[in-house]
Amino acid sequence: MIIDSHAHVVMPPHSFRFMAELVGNRANPSVAPKIPDEAVRKVADELLSTMDSVGTDVQFISPRPYLQMHSVKPARVTELWTRHCNDLIARIVALHPDRFRGVAGLPQCLHESPSVRVVAELKRCVEELGFVGCLINPDPTEGSELPPPGLGDPFWHPLYEAMTALDVPGLIHSAGSCSARESYTLKFINEESIAVVSLLGSDTFEKYPNLKIVVAHGGGAIPYQMGRFRSWSVRKGDKVTFDEQLKKLHFDTCNYSKDSIELLLKVAGVRNVVFGTEKPGTGSARDPVSGRDYDDMKPVIESIEWLSAQDRADIFECNCRRLYSRAFKRD
Amino acid sequence: MIIDSHAHVVMPPHSFRFMAELVGNRANPSVAPKIPDEAVRKVADELLSTMDSVGTDVQFISPRPYLQMHSVKPARVTELWTRHCNDLIARIVALHPDRFRGVAGLPQCLHESPSVRVVAELKRCVEELGFVGCLINPDPTEGSELPPPGLGDPFWHPLYEAMTALDVPGLIHSAGSCSARESYTLKFINEESIAVVSLLGSDTFEKYPNLKIVVAHGGGAIPYQMGRFRSWSVRKGDKVTFDEQLKKLHFDTCNYSKDSIELLLKVAGVRNVVFGTEKPGTGSARDPVSGRDYDDMKPVIESIEWLSAQDRADIFECNCRRLYSRAFKRD
Amino acid sequence: MIIDSHAHVVMPPHSFRFMAELVGNRANPSVAPKIPDEAVRKVADELLSTMDSVGTDVQFISPRPYLQMHSVKPARVTELWTRHCNDLIARIVALHPDRFRGVAGLPQCLHESPSVRVVAELKRCVEELGFVGCLINPDPTEGSELPPPGLGDPFWHPLYEAMTALDVPGLIHSAGSCSARESYTLKFINEESIAVVSLLGSDTFEKYPNLKIVVAHGGGAIPYQMGRFRSWSVRKGDKVTFDEQLKKLHFDTCNYSKDSIELLLKVAGVRNVVFGTEKPGTGSARDPVSGRDYDDMKPVIESIEWLSAQDRADIFECNCRRLYSRAFKRD
Amino acid sequence: MIIDSHAHVVMPPHSFRFMAELVGNRANPSVAPKIPDEAVRKVADELLSTMDSVGTDVQFISPRPYLQMHSVKPARVTELWTRHCNDLIARIVALHPDRFRGVAGLPQCLHESPSVRVVAELKRCVEELGFVGCLINPDPTEGSELPPPGLGDPFWHPLYEAMTALDVPGLIHSAGSCSARESYTLKFINEESIAVVSLLGSDTFEKYPNLKIVVAHGGGAIPYQMGRFRSWSVRKGDKVTFDEQLKKLHFDTCNYSKDSIELLLKVAGVRNVVFGTEKPGTGSARDPVSGRDYDDMKPVIESIEWLSAQDRADIFECNCRRLYSRAFKRD
Amino acid sequence: MIIDSHAHVVMPPHSFRFMAELVGNRANPSVAPKIPDEAVRKVADELLSTMDSVGTDVQFISPRPYLQMHSVKPARVTELWTRHCNDLIARIVALHPDRFRGVAGLPQCLHESPSVRVVAELKRCVEELGFVGCLINPDPTEGSELPPPGLGDPFWHPLYEAMTALDVPGLIHSAGSCSARESYTLKFINEESIAVVSLLGSDTFEKYPNLKIVVAHGGGAIPYQMGRFRSWSVRKGDKVTFDEQLKKLHFDTCNYSKDSIELLLKVAGVRNVVFGTEKPGTGSARDPVSGRDYDDMKPVIESIEWLSAQDRADIFECNCRRLYSRAFKRD
Amino acid sequence: MIIDSHAHVVMPPHSFRFMAELVGNRANPSVAPKIPDEAVRKVADELLSTMDSVGTDVQFISPRPYLQMHSVKPARVTELWTRHCNDLIARIVALHPDRFRGVAGLPQCLHESPSVRVVAELKRCVEELGFVGCLINPDPTEGSELPPPGLGDPFWHPLYEAMTALDVPGLIHSAGSCSARESYTLKFINEESIAVVSLLGSDTFEKYPNLKIVVAHGGGAIPYQMGRFRSWSVRKGDKVTFDEQLKKLHFDTCNYSKDSIELLLKVAGVRNVVFGTEKPGTGSARDPVSGRDYDDMKPVIESIEWLSAQDRADIFECNCRRLYSRAFKRD
Repeated sequence: MIIDSHAHVVMPPHSFRFMAELVGNRANPSVAPKIPDEAVRKVADELLSTMDSVGTDVQFISPRPYLQMHSVKPARVTELWTRHCNDLIARIVALHPDRFRGVAGLPQCLHESPSVRVVAELKRCVEELGFVGCLINPDPTEGSELPPPGLGDPFWHPLYEAMTALDVPGLIHSAGSCSARESYTLKFINEESIAVVSLLGSDTFEKYPNLKIVVAHGGGAIPYQMGRFRSWSVRKGDKVTFDEQLKKLHFDTCNYSKDSIELLLKVAGVRNVVFGTEKPGTGSARDPVSGRDYDDMKPVIESIEWLSAQDRADIFECNCRRLYSRAFKRD
Repeated sequence: MIIDSHAHVVMPPHSFRFMAELVGNRANPSVAPKIPDEAVRKVADELLSTMDSVGTDVQFISPRPYLQMHSVKPARVTELWTRHCNDLIARIVALHPDRFRGVAGLPQCLHESPSVRVVAELKRCVEELGFVGCLINPDPTEGSELPPPGLGDPFWHPLYEAMTALDVPGLIHSAGSCSARESYTLKFINEESIAVVSLLGSDTFEKYPNLKIVVAHGGGAIPYQMGRFRSWSVRKGDKVTFDEQLKKLHFDTCNYSKDSIELLLKVAGVRNVVFGTEKPGTGSARDPVSGRDYDDMKPVIESIEWLSAQDRADIFECNCRRLYSRAFKRD
Repeated sequence: MIIDSHAHVVMPPHSFRFMAELVGNRANPSVAPKIPDEAVRKVADELLSTMDSVGTDVQFISPRPYLQMHSVKPARVTELWTRHCNDLIARIVALHPDRFRGVAGLPQCLHESPSVRVVAELKRCVEELGFVGCLINPDPTEGSELPPPGLGDPFWHPLYEAMTALDVPGLIHSAGSCSARESYTLKFINEESIAVVSLLGSDTFEKYPNLKIVVAHGGGAIPYQMGRFRSWSVRKGDKVTFDEQLKKLHFDTCNYSKDSIELLLKVAGVRNVVFGTEKPGTGSARDPVSGRDYDDMKPVIESIEWLSAQDRADIFECNCRRLYSRAFKRD
Repeated sequence: MIIDSHAHVVMPPHSFRFMAELVGNRANPSVAPKIPDEAVRKVADELLSTMDSVGTDVQFISPRPYLQMHSVKPARVTELWTRHCNDLIARIVALHPDRFRGVAGLPQCLHESPSVRVVAELKRCVEELGFVGCLINPDPTEGSELPPPGLGDPFWHPLYEAMTALDVPGLIHSAGSCSARESYTLKFINEESIAVVSLLGSDTFEKYPNLKIVVAHGGGAIPYQMGRFRSWSVRKGDKVTFDEQLKKLHFDTCNYSKDSIELLLKVAGVRNVVFGTEKPGTGSARDPVSGRDYDDMKPVIESIEWLSAQDRADIFECNCRRLYSRAFKRD
Repeated sequence: MIIDSHAHVVMPPHSFRFMAELVGNRANPSVAPKIPDEAVRKVADELLSTMDSVGTDVQFISPRPYLQMHSVKPARVTELWTRHCNDLIARIVALHPDRFRGVAGLPQCLHESPSVRVVAELKRCVEELGFVGCLINPDPTEGSELPPPGLGDPFWHPLYEAMTALDVPGLIHSAGSCSARESYTLKFINEESIAVVSLLGSDTFEKYPNLKIVVAHGGGAIPYQMGRFRSWSVRKGDKVTFDEQLKKLHFDTCNYSKDSIELLLKVAGVRNVVFGTEKPGTGSARDPVSGRDYDDMKPVIESIEWLSAQDRADIFECNCRRLYSRAFKRD
Repeated sequence: MIIDSHAHVVMPPHSFRFMAELVGNRANPSVAPKIPDEAVRKVADELLSTMDSVGTDVQFISPRPYLQMHSVKPARVTELWTRHCNDLIARIVALHPDRFRGVAGLPQCLHESPSVRVVAELKRCVEELGFVGCLINPDPTEGSELPPPGLGDPFWHPLYEAMTALDVPGLIHSAGSCSARESYTLKFINEESIAVVSLLGSDTFEKYPNLKIVVAHGGGAIPYQMGRFRSWSVRKGDKVTFDEQLKKLHFDTCNYSKDSIELLLKVAGVRNVVFGTEKPGTGSARDPVSGRDYDDMKPVIESIEWLSAQDRADIFECNCRRLYSRAFKRD
């Protein structure tokens, strides 16, 4: 079974029109759009056809990160928009419960504590809509202001509290970028590196031993820069090596290069890596070398010769099942 | 001939998707969307059908104001978006040159002088696309910061310079509103009042005697609050009465109440009022009293008994022809 | 009986000197000025003579709004100044208890919650000085910063709590304006429009059903722009028409144009309009047409032919008596 | 002859009312007040009577510093107010040309370069109104923001350029204080210390060898803290001792303590000290010890036994005549 | 016995390297430096040799103020640095308990309330390290932002609470200065003047009658400007003269001029002045006049003829013993 | 010959004391420290001994990046400090001209254009001190504010102008970090990724075809995340593949992991990689696996079996000689 744990919803035109409304009127008197069943069915079909084309059995879908508008003021804009996206996901999942699972977007905004708005929406998504995980954006300012404290800071504890109570993993995934020098796709990578270092340098996992964190896109720069952090750790006198510390985290394979995937698997260990492609997304372009899309990652994993059959099963399915405990309860 | 001088474009889904792109990636590497001819034709037909339903012969169409995103940073977002909207308008006009005229949106942003970006786009629209006027947003911060100087300030002279050189009128019309206490539709009204007082309290019309300004929505609060400004003017010792000063400006009829239209016509004078409805827009809802849409304004004007036939012709057609000199050159 | 519910105090030179002191030393060691009885008597006489000249029997006097200095930092400046003004009003009322009533200025400042300073002064004025109402400035920043939340926001609940407990109405009336593009007299108008829309778009009157609000100057732009809000309301699907919603508010006649007063009476209804002139004030200039001052409003009301005798009595006296329950207790 | 080189104007009530106007409407449409001759005569008489009571022959009068409103925004407020104060001074001087000289207030504002507004008003005052000097406020933000560069910085060169071209001295004298912890009267002192250190630590006097600076109130803290600056100077390896450097500056005697005046005279030298009392002002209170007002300084100087007759003449008259070259041209 | 109550620690090179670390990595993972005993002994010897050269028996040593980095963000930088400095002082005192006493630096930062970080470090220093007093910096922003409330404000009460509970005096002494116009050595002086006026103008000593405050450097400008404050006090109607009020405070002799010291002793009274030299420090330069260092203050005090033997003993020893109750407990 | 192109100077205690001075007095009167020859010799010896221990023949030394204090205000602090560091480097190089080359630190500060201060110091270092390259910090705010434009922006052209005129390469290397969530060592990595994407997405190399850029630490995250950028590039329709574009840049081997170095060499190509170790630095800790320090990189390169002898020579020597044209002129 092939589970793609990292994919984002495709939206019907009605959603874009609603988004325009929200940006235009800044969530000042506004009505949620009614998306007809047909339109939902159409985007669901689009997603299914993409999945079928690359052999994915189940996809975990979340809001498209760079459209989350976490930094558009006032906060009610992202609040209404997030709810809209999550509701759309729920309808898609309801149409094909055997092919999709919902992963919640959170209405994060700038420097606001996650204790109110974010926790409420997470609960709603998990308890009412049956979602199995959530996205965490380490910088809801989207680069428009200085960022809030790192993910290792108590600032984030209300969210971790809720995540562990509900037993849902969080996928570290930043959103848009207001910075002219740092496109959103690059910000994804940098935020992931910051997230890893902030979390491992803190007492977060002592406080929340059951907290489940997946770092998207193969962990930003960290696996590639391991030497630097290994040495830093030795110099600090850490009792546990940096390689060991890294085992607290999970990573996904959403990194479109075989060499890099191999590096990731060596550094993080096979049991800590879950299959994820973000397809359709940035990687949906034809690689002139392979002749396949960059985000068609299944053959890439399969071509890594030193992986055993069990290793592949772990990556494609078992690690994900273990991590997302709510995703396959019915099975 | 019925000329509706104040209407906004309807956009195809492709535009909304492009808008979402721009907001998401903040104009950081981006490609302009290719809108198929068919989609353009579809929105043009939609507009025509609305016009036909209320007897409008010609409509002046501009970007939809509350979607102009003048305050979304960085400025390149609104620059690309404005260009997109103006290009769309040009294609619609090209399809039905006898039914539409283009009125340009301007890529205004926050406190930036209009001398570069704004003037360049205005020139492009008039000289290359054949547009006949432009929108002016007195507060491109959209309430997210303190506003730039009032329209009577030299800050705006580069724009007036270009407008008079090209001989195109400007329609005072604010854009979105980031303020939770002031919806965009109310901000329209307040900005118009501010614009009138700022312009009349300055030497703008001495410097630019040929400047043509139309204040949308019946002039905000000014006609209703004339007593206050008349007295203020007397106290200041103005040599020209406030009623006389008001004659430097034009107003449109986009105010959905017969009593108010009558007040406007009395105060501003028939020759200074042009027909405009913003249809389809805020007023596109059925008035339970009249049984017609609020923005179906033609019967309203026609029902004002004290207007002569010439008065009506002036309002519906002649004032507009005189004002928008480029609009009917071919005739 | 003619009750002018909207008038502002005239101040003796001692007050201006004290104001200069406060601005100069920013309320840093300072002593309240002792105004001699004679000086108080002189300004009282001045007010009386104005009232007599236009046939006003009773005037409700409050601090002169544009001199309230709500945005001058630190907040203690406006605190001391407001107290001074209210004390002066109390002394004038005490001299002529049958001709005056006190309406309290509030020491509002920038984004400070009204829960402390403002509520305390309101209580002092009503309970100790016998005042019958208060002024509410929706934007104590006076345009020097972005405004606080709209009047419909819970931010203002502590004030409404105190107002309803004391049963005193609040007159919506902004103060000065730091903006070069928006004179204070125009800001009055815009703030009133914002106040109306913010209040009606909120649950304020459900939470405070006995809250009494008077919107000054004929309600800003709202009566003139009713069509826009009627349509907006229909589009939102409001169960109650906008015209009906407007009935929750009262308005005063402080709008120096007969046409506008008629429009106001039609839209708001005779029972919701109270007589008010702001005399002496902005309208105190000779109208060359009528030969009377613009703010000599009694003849204007009397000249509206379609008003019945009872209508006039309502406007001049009865509505005000009903609204300001504390004003005529002794009668 | 006793010349009091440091005194401030007394203002009629009309001025305070105008000030209130300016603060209220923030210099947004406004008319200059017409002060009747009688009122000017009255304040002139008040000043003369004070002078006569302590034996002053000639007084140099400038605007009252703490009322200069240098930090009230927008800058046009202080511009209009400064002009008003200077005009008032000119009228007083014109009434009694043998008893008064005018010292100009400057329309300084926050971080604005003195190159435009300030220089223009200085020229107007000297060339048109016959003034003989000016006040310099080192911190026009009045503590409401971080201060502009120190007086030794090129920021101030346009002012020094104009002062030396016109040959008028500048009296270092700060204005109001917005800081709750630093009253304006204390800020005077601190700003003087900062001015001395900034000027002496710069190349100002090399660039403007004819620049004339008087430091008010006995030079702030500097004479008392000489040891600290002497040592600092030695450590820096200065070629000229700090005591020598100090000779570039003048000081006035506006320090109400005999011990301190003696310290000042020893440190600064008799030739660098001019008589000044700021009377009427902060020192106008009865000293229970001497039985005279604190600011009745003539007897204090006279009681310093080690001063020669020439020394006293220098302090009371000759130093001032030499410094203020325009003050006694006619003699 | 000669007790120098005002001196600052000399630091070994290891400390400077640690400081560089902290500034470079902003207290982001960091380890406290291990300073070898030998290095501590070396700086202790250096201090002793200075003391012996001028006849000081006991020195009270605190962190060097201008190196406290109170405004370097984040606050953890100054927190770690302050702890480091205090620990160093403790080791020096431990080496020579009969020659040194520790005075604590406090980890003040910008506008942070002293209730947490500051109070904790003060307690640690007094209770665990045996310190006898502390430094108080009235402006931890070091001029990089607008300052926190004055020392008379309740903002500081948590610190006073802890100081009185522990019975330790506070030496008013500012730190660095980020302002180009105000060097740190001048800011010392100005902050002391502000501290005196803020404290005496408040109810601090009524709330904390046992609070012990020493104002460094002879009290800034206050003794020299007494006349101004005497008169101000009379005008305010104070019941207690300003001279009397001043008796609530103590001052030290760290002012390198005999005339000034005499002025201080006259104004503050012999019993309120303690010996202090800040040696080695700013005053450690050879005075060409006396041939001694400016900060060799013992001969200066001894040369004041009008002081009695008891006066000298008070200044050199007894006042200090009385004030610093914890300093000589063992005796 | 082994050339280590990336190393930082070791500083004597005098430098740290001078740094403390500069931070304390914020470059407000200050004197450059005189470092005795002996101290310089000592740090040179320390560096030589490190080099010898790992077989390095020549080291390129620059200021230690995280101590550059680019964000400490005012800018003069970093200006004086940078000059001090560069002067120190020049003296070390002068002692051992065959073992060292100087690489200049630049006095970058916050958002200041490099056109003045930075270019002047670069010229001084190259023309007067004989330096062969420079460091470029893409974010001189060090995370304390929003960053300046990306390296592809015209903001940086004055620097590129000077670099190409002098023919010196720039090593992309950020400085400190004020962010609690992003340690300076991690910021190095993220800034390098941002630099690569900003430069390649701009027209910089068209404008400056001879510009030489070396990206430190193996290029941040880019080689590891190549798939993402390859696909992005295809989607944008780039004519040149992302792999080709990358060839405009050079990278160094300062990445302490053999797998990563191999990945780098494959992606960037052997000819675009220069040897660099940053030794002594973050990597100077014993790797328990290899038994050598992490930054002892020579054996690592030598152990990559698929590299030819010429490849190794290129990496160790030839690429560097070609790039740094001024470094071996004498040979």
